[in-house]
Amino acid sequence: MTTVFYGSRAWGLFHRASSSSSSRVWTHPPFVGLSPGRGLSRPPPCRAAHSGVRRLPFATLSQQDRDFFQTLLPGRALTDPEVLEASNVDWLKSVRGSSELLLRPRTTEEVSQILRYCNARGLAVTPQGGNTGLVGGSVPVFDEIILSTALLNQVLSFDVVSGILTCQAGCVLEALSSFVGEQDFVMPLDLGAKGSCHIGGNVATNAGGLRLLRYGPLRGTVLGLEVVLADGTVLDSQAPLRKDNTGYDLKQLFIGSEGTLGVVTAVSILCPRKPSAVNLAFLGCATFPQVLETFQLCRGMLGEVLSAFEFLDSACMKLVQDHLKLTNPIKACEVFVTGSGVLSLLILKRALSPLAESPFYILIETSGSSAAHDEEKLHRFLQEVMTSSLVADGTVATEDSKIKALWALRERITEALTHDGCVYKYDLSLPVQHIYQLVEDMQEHLGTRAKNVVGYGHLGDGNLHLNITSPSHDPALLAAIEPYVYEWTARHHGSISAEHGLGLKKRNYVHFSKPAPALRLMWQIKSLLDPRGILNPYKTLPDRASTD
Amino acid sequence: MTTVFYGSRAWGLFHRASSSSSSRVWTHPPFVGLSPGRGLSRPPPCRAAHSGVRRLPFATLSQQDRDFFQTLLPGRALTDPEVLEASNVDWLKSVRGSSELLLRPRTTEEVSQILRYCNARGLAVTPQGGNTGLVGGSVPVFDEIILSTALLNQVLSFDVVSGILTCQAGCVLEALSSFVGEQDFVMPLDLGAKGSCHIGGNVATNAGGLRLLRYGPLRGTVLGLEVVLADGTVLDSQAPLRKDNTGYDLKQLFIGSEGTLGVVTAVSILCPRKPSAVNLAFLGCATFPQVLETFQLCRGMLGEVLSAFEFLDSACMKLVQDHLKLTNPIKACEVFVTGSGVLSLLILKRALSPLAESPFYILIETSGSSAAHDEEKLHRFLQEVMTSSLVADGTVATEDSKIKALWALRERITEALTHDGCVYKYDLSLPVQHIYQLVEDMQEHLGTRAKNVVGYGHLGDGNLHLNITSPSHDPALLAAIEPYVYEWTARHHGSISAEHGLGLKKRNYVHFSKPAPALRLMWQIKSLLDPRGILNPYKTLPDRASTD
Repeated sequence: MTTVFYGSRAWGLFHRASSSSSSRVWTHPPFVGLSPGRGLSRPPPCRAAHSGVRRLPFATLSQQDRDFFQTLLPGRALTDPEVLEASNVDWLKSVRGSSELLLRPRTTEEVSQILRYCNARGLAVTPQGGNTGLVGGSVPVFDEIILSTALLNQVLSFDVVSGILTCQAGCVLEALSSFVGEQDFVMPLDLGAKGSCHIGGNVATNAGGLRLLRYGPLRGTVLGLEVVLADGTVLDSQAPLRKDNTGYDLKQLFIGSEGTLGVVTAVSILCPRKPSAVNLAFLGCATFPQVLETFQLCRGMLGEVLSAFEFLDSACMKLVQDHLKLTNPIKACEVFVTGSGVLSLLILKRALSPLAESPFYILIETSGSSAAHDEEKLHRFLQEVMTSSLVADGTVATEDSKIKALWALRERITEALTHDGCVYKYDLSLPVQHIYQLVEDMQEHLGTRAKNVVGYGHLGDGNLHLNITSPSHDPALLAAIEPYVYEWTARHHGSISAEHGLGLKKRNYVHFSKPAPALRLMWQIKSLLDPRGILNPYKTLPDRASTD
Repeated sequence: MTTVFYGSRAWGLFHRASSSSSSRVWTHPPFVGLSPGRGLSRPPPCRAAHSGVRRLPFATLSQQDRDFFQTLLPGRALTDPEVLEASNVDWLKSVRGSSELLLRPRTTEEVSQILRYCNARGLAVTPQGGNTGLVGGSVPVFDEIILSTALLNQVLSFDVVSGILTCQAGCVLEALSSFVGEQDFVMPLDLGAKGSCHIGGNVATNAGGLRLLRYGPLRGTVLGLEVVLADGTVLDSQAPLRKDNTGYDLKQLFIGSEGTLGVVTAVSILCPRKPSAVNLAFLGCATFPQVLETFQLCRGMLGEVLSAFEFLDSACMKLVQDHLKLTNPIKACEVFVTGSGVLSLLILKRALSPLAESPFYILIETSGSSAAHDEEKLHRFLQEVMTSSLVADGTVATEDSKIKALWALRERITEALTHDGCVYKYDLSLPVQHIYQLVEDMQEHLGTRAKNVVGYGHLGDGNLHLNITSPSHDPALLAAIEPYVYEWTARHHGSISAEHGLGLKKRNYVHFSKPAPALRLMWQIKSLLDPRGILNPYKTLPDRASTD
C-alpha cells in the first residue's frame, strides 16, 4: 500500500487559462509539456497543507494485461514513461500520478472493450480529455490506466438546418468552433483552454465559460450523449433532437460527473448561429450597488444582445496596470477609434468628473445579428446609465483589436496576480447581491495579514473569483481564509465550485454546498453505475466516511 | 386483485390545450370539471384497443390510515367522492382512478411526513399538480392516494437583479407569469394550460411549450429543486445559483420523471427579461424544402429575436377554414393594419402570383427589446425570402389583436380536427429534415383509408404533430398507423414523445425511443430511489418484463 501526497491548495495558483492569456486562444496540446515561452511565467508554488490519499485495493497491471491492450490497440497502448509524463501530471503540475499505461482508443467499441476488461480485472481507469482541468480531475493519482479520448476526434454529423452537431468526445473545442464557424454557427461554449480541451471533457466537467450568460449551460445545449459504462455497456442517447420526453434524462447524470460514472464517447450539441456584430463597453462605477443596478438596467435595455457582463474592482485594475503595464482606458482618456458610425465617439465622460480611478469596472459585451441595431441599443443604454449617474466613465469598442484590448483588462487579471506573490484563489457561485460582500468581509476579516484581497468575475452568472495574495506562502493566512471562505459561502447559499468541478481537490469540501442526503445519493448512484469503483477513483465523491 | 382497463389510444383525442383554444390562456382549475361552455366541445371518443393493468400489491387504506392523515392535515385530507371525482380523472377523461383520499399539504414537512408514512405502510401515492397532463400521468389508476400540490402555492423569493424565482411547487404557471411580469420578467416557459398547470407539474413532466425555441428547455432554466423522496427524505438543491459544479446534478433526475422518483415541493427557475416588442409573420411556401431553407435563413437574419417558428400544411389550413370559419390571411389578401411604422404595409405579395392556397404555411414570431429594430430585421428577412422566391406570399402583424388572430390559425388546428371526425394524434420529435417526410409517407401508406393525414407543429424544435382523421373509429386504420408510426420514428432516430412525457399511456412504447440498457438503468434508478415502488406506480417506466 502506497500513500501519496498532493498539494490540496496548490491548484489555486491559476484560476483559468482564459484569464491567464492575452488572447482567448490558449494552446496546450496533449503530450507536449508547457514550454516557458508558450504559456505564462509560472509563479512560485504556494503549497501548504497536504492531504493524504490511500491507494484503494485495485489490481495492478500485469504483463498479461499489457499484452491484452497491445493486441486490442496496436501501437495505441503506450508505456513509454516519457510519453506518459504529460498525461500523468495536470496542467498546474499540482497532481502527479504514476500510471504506466496510456490507452488511445479510436472507437466506442474499443472503449467498451477496455472498460469491460478493466472492470472484470478490477483495474482502475482515469478518463482523460485535453487534461486542462484545474481541480486534479483528469490525471491519475496512483497507477490508474489513462484512457485518452485524443483519437476519438471525428465529427459525425452537422445539420445546417437545426444547428445540431454530433461528434466524438475527443474533438478539440477550437477545432469544432472552426468547423461550425465555417457554416456560420458557433459552439454554445467558449473557454480559455479551447485550443486543447476536448468536448467530452467539457461535458464531463460541465464547463461554464464565456458564453454561458447568453447560451445557457451545457445541461440545456447538450442534446445527447454516448457513454460507456464501467462494465462496458454502451448507453446511447445521441439522437440529435431538441425535444425528447421519454423517461429519465440519463445523459444528465454524466454531465459534470467528471468521468466517475461513465466515459463520454460522443456528444450531440445544439449550436447557435454566429452573431455578425460584437460590441464592448468598459465602464467605471462608484459603488457595487451601482454595478448591480447597471446590470439590471442592462438586462432590460440590451436584452437579447447581451452576451457578457463581467466586473473587476479597482485593486484588480491596479494589478494589471502595475504588473502588466496595461492602461486603464477610462483614466487615460484614450480614444478608441471604431470602424462604424453610431458609436464613433467612444469616450463617455461625465463633464465634471475628475480623471480618477473608479472603485469598480464593468465589461459589457453585446453580440447580435445587426451591428447598427446593437450599437444603437448600447448607445441608448450608455446614455441612460450616464444620465442617471449609475456609471461615472466609460469607453466602447466595436473593432476587433480594440475589443481584445479591453477584454485583456479582464482576462489578464490572473496573470497579474501571479506577479503579486503567493495567490490563494477561490471560484465561488453566489446569489448576485452578495457577490462582492464576500470580498469586503474577507478584507475586514484578514486586515493587514493579506497583501491584496481582490474580486472579479462573471457577474452576469453570479460567479465570483476571490483572490488573496501575500508576499510568500503564509500558513497562518491560509488558516484565516479557510474554512472561513467556505462557511461564508455556505451561509449565503452559494456554491464552493461555480464552474471547475470537484475533481481530487475540492471533493472533501463539497459538504459546504451539498446536504448529507445529496451526498448519500451521489454515492448510491456511483455504486449503482460503477460497483467496483474503477472509474476515476479519488475524484468528485467525498470520502465515504463523511457521508455516512 | 382487480384489473382495470384504460383506453390506450384515447389520449389522442386532444393534443394540447394550447392548440385547442382561441387564445393562449386556457383555464381549467383543479376540482372543477370542464363545463361545456368553458372548454372545447368534446369530440366523440375514439377508443380502440385497451390494455389491462393489474393492481400491484400495495396496502389498502385503513381507518387507522385515515385517522393519521386527518390528524396530520386537519381539513385537508379529503374523502368526499364528489370532491375526489375531479382528481380521479384526467382532463381528457381517458384515465379514471378510484382513489378514496386526497391530501393537500401546505408544507414540505407535511409532504415528508405523508411519504414517510406511506412508504412504511406500503401505500401507493400519485402526486398531482394541475392535472392537465395528456398521457395519464397525473391521476391514480387504482386506489392510490392523491397528493395534491394545490396548497403548496407560495412564492418564496424573487431576485430582481438575477431574475431568479423560487416558489413552492403548486404555484400556477399563469400566476407566476403575472407575478414576474409585474417586475418586467417572463417565465421561461409558456403553455396553453398555464391557467391551471402547476410549476411543479411542469418540472415533473419537463414541459416544453411555446418558448422553448427562445429560452431553451427546463433542464437549463431550472436552477434548483426541493424534492421529497419516497421515504420522506427532503433533498434540497434550491440554491438560486446560475452555476453550481459540485458533483452530480441530482435535480435533473426529477425533471421529467413524472413523480415516479420523488415529489417536487419547490422550484428555483431563471426568468428572462420581458421583451418589449413582438412581431408575427405568416408566410406561404410552395414546398417543404423551401420551409426548411426559410427556417435556416430566418435563424441567421432574425438571430437573437426569433422566438417561434411554427408550420402547418394546407390540409390544416383547410380544416380551420372549413370547420372554424377562420380566414386564410394570405389568400384573402386581408390587410392587417399595424400600430407602427416600418412594416405598416403588411401584405407581401409577389407581383404575379395568383391568389392560391400555399402547400405550407409558416408562422414566425420575433420578441425583442426594440420594436423598431425587430421590425427592421423582419422586414429585411422578408425582402430576402420574397426576392429569392423561398416564400410565395405573406402577411405581418405587430398589433396584439392581429397577432392573436394569426396565432389562432396555428393554435386552433386541434380544435378544427375534432370537428373532422375521429382523430388519431401523434406528438413526435424528429431530425428537422425528416419532419414532414413522415406525413407524406403516412399519406401514401394509408391511401384512401384515412379521411385526412395532416402535419403541423413546432418546426423550430423539430416537433411534429401528426394527425389522422376518419369518419368514425376504425380499428383497421389504427392497426395500419401503429406500430408503423413508431417504427418510422425509431428508424429516423426520433422520439415518440417530444413534450408530453410517457405517463400511463406511452410507457410501453418507450423501447421505440430508448435502447434496452437505458430502460434497465431507468428501472435501477427507480428501485434505488423508491424501493417499494409507492410513487406514481404504473407510470413512466415500461413493464419490467420488457426491459429484462
